[in-house]
Amino acid sequence: MNTSPYNHKYHSLVAIGQVASLLLAVISGALMVTTAVSLFMGDTPKVVCGFLITLILTAILSAIFYYVCRQRLGRRTLETSARDGFVSVGIGWLVVSVIAAVAFKLTIGIPWADAIFETSSGLTTTGATILGDSALFEAPMGCVGEAEPSFGYGILFWRAMLNWLGGVGIVFFVLLLLPMLKLGQSKMLYNAEVPGLKTAADQTTPHLATSVWCVLGVYGGLTLAAILLYHIFGMTWFDAVCHAFSTISTGGFSPRADGLASYNNRPALQWIVVLFMFLSACNFSLHIQRFTSLKEVYWKDEEFRVFFIVVLVAIGFVAMTLGLSKIPREKLFLNGGAGVTFVSVEEYLRVAAFQVVTVLSTTGFCNGNWESWGISSVLLLLAILMVPCGCGGSTAGGMKWSRIVVLFKQLSLEIRRCISPRMVQDIRLNNERLDNGVVGKTLAFAALYFIITIVVAFVLSVIEPMASNVSTAFGAALTSLSNVGPGFGAVNPAGNFAQFNAVSKLLLALTMIVGRLELFTIIVLFLPSTWKK
Amino acid sequence: MNTSPYNHKYHSLVAIGQVASLLLAVISGALMVTTAVSLFMGDTPKVVCGFLITLILTAILSAIFYYVCRQRLGRRTLETSARDGFVSVGIGWLVVSVIAAVAFKLTIGIPWADAIFETSSGLTTTGATILGDSALFEAPMGCVGEAEPSFGYGILFWRAMLNWLGGVGIVFFVLLLLPMLKLGQSKMLYNAEVPGLKTAADQTTPHLATSVWCVLGVYGGLTLAAILLYHIFGMTWFDAVCHAFSTISTGGFSPRADGLASYNNRPALQWIVVLFMFLSACNFSLHIQRFTSLKEVYWKDEEFRVFFIVVLVAIGFVAMTLGLSKIPREKLFLNGGAGVTFVSVEEYLRVAAFQVVTVLSTTGFCNGNWESWGISSVLLLLAILMVPCGCGGSTAGGMKWSRIVVLFKQLSLEIRRCISPRMVQDIRLNNERLDNGVVGKTLAFAALYFIITIVVAFVLSVIEPMASNVSTAFGAALTSLSNVGPGFGAVNPAGNFAQFNAVSKLLLALTMIVGRLELFTIIVLFLPSTWKK
Repeated sequence: MNTSPYNHKYHSLVAIGQVASLLLAVISGALMVTTAVSLFMGDTPKVVCGFLITLILTAILSAIFYYVCRQRLGRRTLETSARDGFVSVGIGWLVVSVIAAVAFKLTIGIPWADAIFETSSGLTTTGATILGDSALFEAPMGCVGEAEPSFGYGILFWRAMLNWLGGVGIVFFVLLLLPMLKLGQSKMLYNAEVPGLKTAADQTTPHLATSVWCVLGVYGGLTLAAILLYHIFGMTWFDAVCHAFSTISTGGFSPRADGLASYNNRPALQWIVVLFMFLSACNFSLHIQRFTSLKEVYWKDEEFRVFFIVVLVAIGFVAMTLGLSKIPREKLFLNGGAGVTFVSVEEYLRVAAFQVVTVLSTTGFCNGNWESWGISSVLLLLAILMVPCGCGGSTAGGMKWSRIVVLFKQLSLEIRRCISPRMVQDIRLNNERLDNGVVGKTLAFAALYFIITIVVAFVLSVIEPMASNVSTAFGAALTSLSNVGPGFGAVNPAGNFAQFNAVSKLLLALTMIVGRLELFTIIVLFLPSTWKK
Repeated sequence: MNTSPYNHKYHSLVAIGQVASLLLAVISGALMVTTAVSLFMGDTPKVVCGFLITLILTAILSAIFYYVCRQRLGRRTLETSARDGFVSVGIGWLVVSVIAAVAFKLTIGIPWADAIFETSSGLTTTGATILGDSALFEAPMGCVGEAEPSFGYGILFWRAMLNWLGGVGIVFFVLLLLPMLKLGQSKMLYNAEVPGLKTAADQTTPHLATSVWCVLGVYGGLTLAAILLYHIFGMTWFDAVCHAFSTISTGGFSPRADGLASYNNRPALQWIVVLFMFLSACNFSLHIQRFTSLKEVYWKDEEFRVFFIVVLVAIGFVAMTLGLSKIPREKLFLNGGAGVTFVSVEEYLRVAAFQVVTVLSTTGFCNGNWESWGISSVLLLLAILMVPCGCGGSTAGGMKWSRIVVLFKQLSLEIRRCISPRMVQDIRLNNERLDNGVVGKTLAFAALYFIITIVVAFVLSVIEPMASNVSTAFGAALTSLSNVGPGFGAVNPAGNFAQFNAVSKLLLALTMIVGRLELFTIIVLFLPSTWKK
């Protein structure tokens, strides 16, 4: 086969076009459902038409890309490189973001920076929003003052849909695509134990299809279960669907202005949300294995064990600290109301569990405002937990516990080497030896994570008047990179990003994407050598 | 030679005894000078006697250790291991700290936790203090209200002396002792270019002696130059000596309550202090080479180049931001006085240069209070600079720029490897190839640095009511680990650590020591396997 530079460039373009065409087709499907919901819920014609126009545009673009690529490729097999993989993911992400932003623009006409921010926040499953309270359900369900959202239902459904697509997208990306790009680390760290997924990395088509259906089955099944349980325990169907979409994707967009705090008087519902947030932060390979093999697999996984123990310890610490500090009800809950003064143990535990799991799973739903508690140890703990977040292969963002485990093992090895300099020992995860390159990449990843957080926080503190205190700047940077949603200071759970200026919004949108795509994927696009030849 | 476990243990004990004896002898000398100063300056008999008793105690202990070790060793040569090195340094540090704390206790009778904090802060060249303003010169020199310090002069001299000893100690530790412990990284990172020092690592006695004299000569010479220039430009002899001691050691203890802000109306003096702080943060190997070879060596050193450029850029950024924000005189300077409203360009530049260099050199002298400026970008920049700080082989604390350079080179390599996975490339520093082990250790060091900072900040936020906001807790942890001195929040340049509780003071004292001895040295002492066999 011809491997001349021209031919290689040609193959790259076709690969990028194919990815773009596929993604546009998926977005068309999502827009079709959204248009239907918008029409069915009785939105204004402007909104319905906005969705319809975007849908037609997307479908046409998808078709054009598909036919052009097919025609150019003919019967040849595609030859791609790691570089093509990175470039396709980058460009694909760009195309989807633009289409999704156009939908915001055509329906509710918000400024471009806002549309891009909201889109990125949705697709990266961050869940930070620039929509004002009037665009959402303002009062708790069924209370006096509950008004219809000013932009109608379609746009709220579209946000939940972006979360849901972003969630399933990232599971595909980490479990199926990264291994194809032959990045040692992801294959070893996320994909070592699922036989079906392992073969998918070898690009054998039948197995790839099986893997895709496995992922879709578990993701869809969890979503369905969440919708049903949410409805049974008190949500309207619309609320249940939107919240289920943004729970399983750990996105965190809510159609309600005070989010899950609307359901503060429904303990069972909030506990169920905690459960689903937790499940979504576990490695989806484990869920798939559990369903296909029907054997206990969770506790055998080293990352899961660490994650589970951290969840329990953190909940215990936060609940105890809140209880010992005797935080009153109106400060404990977001919009707690000043009526009842007594706070039960269950309420302390529930708020602690909800807030810890919302941060670790990077969902960003809130039933309490950690800033109003005013306890520095809890704030610091939540900020620390915002770094590792969930497990690899989940829809959660952050550095992932598997990397933290490898980091600590390597650190312990280096410390012991001070005493016995000639000691040779492997770093193992789930009893599999990790390659030196994998360990090096993990350390580099951790360093890069800190550096990006600090650089973004610094740039924000220079360009953004709202970030006039260090915790706001730092919180906005970290919550965006880890795809959590709420941060500290001006962007605490009760605040939002609407007041930020356009440049800051674009910077944070980029930060979310960098974090979501595991840093290196986007960073390499800024490398001059990627574009040479 | 017999290598039975008993014999090895025996050798270890003798080695530790020898180190302790030597250090106690040095402390005796320092106490002798301090007692003389105390007597000469007319301190109360209680203080003079306190120093005298500590002196006698120390001298006796030193002699006992010396004779016991000599008797036990006889004519045999000492056989030591890396473990003995770590243990001797740890124990040696402990012994010196206890003696120095006893001096505080016997002279001014402060509580034990305070005495240990002040001692550690002095010996680690941190410069954070728990002494109240009344113990120091309260008003600017020559102003109305200048009172004699309540505890007399001896104690102020003793603090400066601790700084000075800590400074010369760390230069010996990094340039001579660490290479003997055969820790690859220090030899390569700090010691690659000085032929005299290089042979010292091979423990050849004549060269070791030469190296010791080189270090003492440069350190003493810089101190003398500082004393003279400080006196010529307006300090009293006492002030000049104390400030010179804590400048060259980058310690930062000052006999004045408002530190160098006392000299806000002496621009030339403050610029000279900036110069000496900068010189003390450079690798002393370079100074030694410059003096012995009389050739230009600084600009050839990669670490120096990076450090120099960072200093210039940071000063430029801070001065510009202060100027553009039109910070008024009374906020710009610590105790600026509200009299004059006009602020000149020189004053903005001077405050910026002083504060940037004080942080980077980890001295901790202040002529302005960064917290009162209220600019988040400057606060964040100073917090960021508190991580790398100075150059390796200097008296400055922190992670050192050589490690940052290696970190960034490794990071850039890992990013390029995403595109070309099979790329093999060396990490080089000053054109010398770094061993893989060195790079791994550097990455582990960086990770450990962040982990310790975060853990200490978290523990502080739990146990210390004064650390009720995150920046105080974080600032106290970072400033202690990097041996800077002032931090943020309650421990900003105008605050101090006196209000902290005893446990927090001890925790911070330990943090300073961990940071000062390059983390691993102390961490291995907590490792069970160090004490096995």
